[in-house]
Amino acid sequence: MSENSYTIWFTGMPCSGKTTIASALFNELKSQGIRHIYHLDGDVVRSGLCNGLGFSILDRMENLHRISEVSRMMNEAGVLVLASFVSPDEQMRSMVKSTIPNLSMVYVKCSAEECEKRDVKGMWKKARMGEIKDFTGVDSEFQEPNDPDLILDTINMSLEECVEKSLALISKLNIKQV
Amino acid sequence: MSENSYTIWFTGMPCSGKTTIASALFNELKSQGIRHIYHLDGDVVRSGLCNGLGFSILDRMENLHRISEVSRMMNEAGVLVLASFVSPDEQMRSMVKSTIPNLSMVYVKCSAEECEKRDVKGMWKKARMGEIKDFTGVDSEFQEPNDPDLILDTINMSLEECVEKSLALISKLNIKQV
Repeated sequence: MSENSYTIWFTGMPCSGKTTIASALFNELKSQGIRHIYHLDGDVVRSGLCNGLGFSILDRMENLHRISEVSRMMNEAGVLVLASFVSPDEQMRSMVKSTIPNLSMVYVKCSAEECEKRDVKGMWKKARMGEIKDFTGVDSEFQEPNDPDLILDTINMSLEECVEKSLALISKLNIKQV
Repeated sequence: MSENSYTIWFTGMPCSGKTTIASALFNELKSQGIRHIYHLDGDVVRSGLCNGLGFSILDRMENLHRISEVSRMMNEAGVLVLASFVSPDEQMRSMVKSTIPNLSMVYVKCSAEECEKRDVKGMWKKARMGEIKDFTGVDSEFQEPNDPDLILDTINMSLEECVEKSLALISKLNIKQV
């Protein structure tokens, strides 16, 4: 195990701000000199590692299973992983936690109403029109996590605050810069 | 891209020596101070990332597709990847090469007769008895690679020689120790 053997996992509804926060955090950590770091994001893996998988419960589980395995392997190689995935229920998050030994769970909290208003890629609209099935917040439930290590409330906190809080969490983990 | 953004891919028949060479090379590189390195091996991923996949042509393609994606992502995170997989034909190896931008292909060469004689885990025996289907060398073909970057002949070369030749290949890639 190397110094960066850790995963920060961002869970939250679509358009809650997971990818935005993880990307900003990634850039900040890079600028601080952390070189071995990777941002695993839903959109990216679905076009590669997980193409062919849909959004049914079973396909989501398989999606998260593969991502978790990759995170664990990357951690073993000394990479700090930032993972941003809806991961909508406790069963899925438990599977993730049991696969990745060194993990902090960050809940990116935002009301469904606000997420739908943001709708950065028009996904909520498509889900409302029935063009996307099993969309979390529309016809699939999001369960709030029971015991997150950090909550980022993206209605009341700025992006800068969210990044700061994430950095504080990481600094507590005593991850050395390599 | 970091300094270690590279994959060394070992192809060859079952029991040709891929895993043995990659493991020894991994240990040697670790002892030389290369910290961000990962050995992706068939047996390991089949119990995690690729569980549920069999050995049919389609399942092998999907197996190698996932592994290639993981190798590429690890390279992006600055990890030097040693991958040991049968990868039995040119179509599969082409897919691997087109997925991973920085890759050297190492052909671990050994006759089918000698591989079967070694049979370290009794897999050849099981295949001969029909307990494993689509086993490379028994009821599935191994095509020699057209243009490997290195050939390691494990009948005529010792393990030490194979590791030395691999190290020479890596040193030419100018991978810095980080």
